[in-house]
Amino acid sequence: MANDKKKMVEAITAQEVDFAQWYTDICTKAELVEYSSVKGFVVLRPYGYAIWENIQKNLDARFKATGHENVAMPLLIPESLLKKEGELVEGFAPEVAWVTAGGSEPLEERLAVRPTSETMFSDHFAHVLHSYRDLPMLYNQWCSVVRWEKSTRPFLRTREFWWQEGHTIHETAAEAEAETAQQLECYADFCERDLCIPVLKGRKTDKEKFAGAEATYTIEAMMKDGKALQSGTSHYFGDKFSRAYDVTFTGRDNTLQYPFQTSWGASSRLIGAIIMTHGDDDGLILPPAIAPIQVVIVPVAAHKPGVTEKAQELAAALRGDFRVKVDDSDKAPGWKFSQWEMKGVPLRIEVGPRDIEQGQCVLVRRDNREKQFVKFEDLPAAVSAALDALAAALYENAKNNREARTYTAKTLDEIKAITAEHTGFIKAMWCGDLACEEAMKEQAGLSSRCMPFEQEPISDVCPVCGKPAKKMVVWGVAY
Amino acid sequence: MANDKKKMVEAITAQEVDFAQWYTDICTKAELVEYSSVKGFVVLRPYGYAIWENIQKNLDARFKATGHENVAMPLLIPESLLKKEGELVEGFAPEVAWVTAGGSEPLEERLAVRPTSETMFSDHFAHVLHSYRDLPMLYNQWCSVVRWEKSTRPFLRTREFWWQEGHTIHETAAEAEAETAQQLECYADFCERDLCIPVLKGRKTDKEKFAGAEATYTIEAMMKDGKALQSGTSHYFGDKFSRAYDVTFTGRDNTLQYPFQTSWGASSRLIGAIIMTHGDDDGLILPPAIAPIQVVIVPVAAHKPGVTEKAQELAAALRGDFRVKVDDSDKAPGWKFSQWEMKGVPLRIEVGPRDIEQGQCVLVRRDNREKQFVKFEDLPAAVSAALDALAAALYENAKNNREARTYTAKTLDEIKAITAEHTGFIKAMWCGDLACEEAMKEQAGLSSRCMPFEQEPISDVCPVCGKPAKKMVVWGVAY
Repeated sequence: MANDKKKMVEAITAQEVDFAQWYTDICTKAELVEYSSVKGFVVLRPYGYAIWENIQKNLDARFKATGHENVAMPLLIPESLLKKEGELVEGFAPEVAWVTAGGSEPLEERLAVRPTSETMFSDHFAHVLHSYRDLPMLYNQWCSVVRWEKSTRPFLRTREFWWQEGHTIHETAAEAEAETAQQLECYADFCERDLCIPVLKGRKTDKEKFAGAEATYTIEAMMKDGKALQSGTSHYFGDKFSRAYDVTFTGRDNTLQYPFQTSWGASSRLIGAIIMTHGDDDGLILPPAIAPIQVVIVPVAAHKPGVTEKAQELAAALRGDFRVKVDDSDKAPGWKFSQWEMKGVPLRIEVGPRDIEQGQCVLVRRDNREKQFVKFEDLPAAVSAALDALAAALYENAKNNREARTYTAKTLDEIKAITAEHTGFIKAMWCGDLACEEAMKEQAGLSSRCMPFEQEPISDVCPVCGKPAKKMVVWGVAY
Repeated sequence: MANDKKKMVEAITAQEVDFAQWYTDICTKAELVEYSSVKGFVVLRPYGYAIWENIQKNLDARFKATGHENVAMPLLIPESLLKKEGELVEGFAPEVAWVTAGGSEPLEERLAVRPTSETMFSDHFAHVLHSYRDLPMLYNQWCSVVRWEKSTRPFLRTREFWWQEGHTIHETAAEAEAETAQQLECYADFCERDLCIPVLKGRKTDKEKFAGAEATYTIEAMMKDGKALQSGTSHYFGDKFSRAYDVTFTGRDNTLQYPFQTSWGASSRLIGAIIMTHGDDDGLILPPAIAPIQVVIVPVAAHKPGVTEKAQELAAALRGDFRVKVDDSDKAPGWKFSQWEMKGVPLRIEVGPRDIEQGQCVLVRRDNREKQFVKFEDLPAAVSAALDALAAALYENAKNNREARTYTAKTLDEIKAITAEHTGFIKAMWCGDLACEEAMKEQAGLSSRCMPFEQEPISDVCPVCGKPAKKMVVWGVAY
């Protein structure tokens, strides 16, 4: 058994040795993705897609509970339509894939494979919006989008990725702003409660905001290596797109008005966040809420009479409340233990002839390997408690990592000294000038992650230029 | 009220006047789709998408119950990869949309926007398949595909459409054949039970089969106008794609072998089938299993005390078991009746002050307008019974239409005489020659829909050439 286990594990690079390699090892060894024959595109394999499906189900239920409806917009966008809003097209043009022929005929106008769908939604709103009575329109779409990235990594940056994009229009600016805030909070709550990932909520600087947005809000998570991962964004557009795409409605006062718009998105990169927030040198560790399998039952000495039957019986008792799998394949138990650890299944149940004699089984937590003997009749309650405890521990550990790697600095020298030693979040003041933000990148290798909603007065002046500070910014190195 | 109703209804063309116009009227007036600014592409609006979501949920549960797993394959396919299987590329080349640039750079090799994904699945199988122990691989993907159609109609033929494509590989030909049959039966059962659409099951002729398939099986539905709609297909590929894409595994005897492959798909055109099988001059009629709203409650004299409250109370009592909406908007009841009839909601409940006094409400069926007074306490049982009765009636009516429009013919003259008068299914024998199949198209305007599993000996000879007949074919005019 020890040997079997070693054989599984030696295939993964240790986090300490090479975090980036550890990450890609997990992506393939846990069978989440496979590289495809199309450069920069991956295949989401059944286990990876099952995680994405659970994320979708959870978020979709949240969106619907607040009145959002799903729609499907065309995949391809005419260039002229894309160009109507100048900032958006400027931001996305360098990474658009262009369709130039349909069948054997060249197209009169080339079509963009959607990199994001503000243009299509705005164009649709212009067709279907008539009166203030039609507002708000609270739409969402689940789809994949294409952005021609130069260097790619599974989940974090691929030329195609899977996401949802919410697009809403409202009668007033205040309503649209409230929607933007509500959806950011939705993402934050989902990450914290269901993915066990603590997030920092704040506003992006103008440099980092979405092309065409008036304001972009973000949730930023910290990975185990101290780098930041933007995990969801929510944008307020004012009436900019409405004006560009001529979206109007007859208001309560019978005049023609422009609605106020938002968009918000979260993507399959959340799976990257899960891997790098919780994983360890034995593989993935999945938060129970989105784990395709929450409990794996491994019969030990399965050839002995009654063992496999007991495993099936325990599974049947748990199945109504939990996602359970019995691994009755012909592999050795040790091999199975390693494999399901690699795949991050939160709980393992071992049951063998001796356990059966004693009316109990062994329950093992994936995160801390804690084992407990549980009487058969107590199993459902014990599984429930162990999943809760595991989820709480994942969150706590992630929060502790973030706190240990969050620094405060008043001067550029202090900032440089920190970045020379550590990777993490650095809280520092900022005057609001683009030049100082760019200097932080050039001199300290840091980008602004966000201006947190919870501000702290670190000092009075900008560490770069010495002018009066306007905001505390959290700086970091981003994925 | 009568006027209000007229106002809603006069916007739709009657089926008798122009069936094609009636169909497109429903698509837009029932708010299923909206034309987009991209030629040949539509927007699926919330109500249309909600129907599609219910179809997805139902089919997805069926697929998973038989061990299928969802995955996601790249959207774009390199031309060289697409070309590896000659028949497939020949079949699809005329309708492929080509990506030729990524960002500002032209691509070295152009990429096809997937028209179907046999190539990507085969390429992936080649990467991940090793041993017979890995088989079967039972995969499915929900996505949209693009085919550059010349003339388009919502749901029936659009340049982008939404579908699922199942792709499986098996150790033996027999297992792959059984999968092909199982999935066809899955589609047939779904159509008949849940969409209330009777279907004919059979095999396609070589002319009509999927490009690259060894055998294509189909379910064919008949629309109200007598035309046929292919509603789902299941293909058996043998080891053709395995050989073309070098998909191999180590068999039980330790030799390298090619697996046997299937694919099967059903698409958003099922919504077109629903519209044209069940709809009437007042709009859509939705089968309860996939209706986004199964029961709409309309308060009458809603300004009177207690009426809206009672409507909400009835909704609350139904909501655990049914999808219910209370329409408490400020429109007149008659307008609401028409609107929800247009949208095909199976049941309407009317409740006003007088009903409340008598402890009852009015339950109205969408299909036959049958009204019944129901005591409040009996409502859940009455709704359940009415939905079942409506579903059974939809199926019966569709079946009656099909039977009334199914003809039998022994000679080409008989066939021509029928087609001069009627549109429907014509059962006739066939010698198996392509020339005779083409003659049926040229001389009678008919294509072979399928060779039904249930064969009937109409005559001994082919009506076109007079040679011995091999099969009974059902001929028709297809959407």
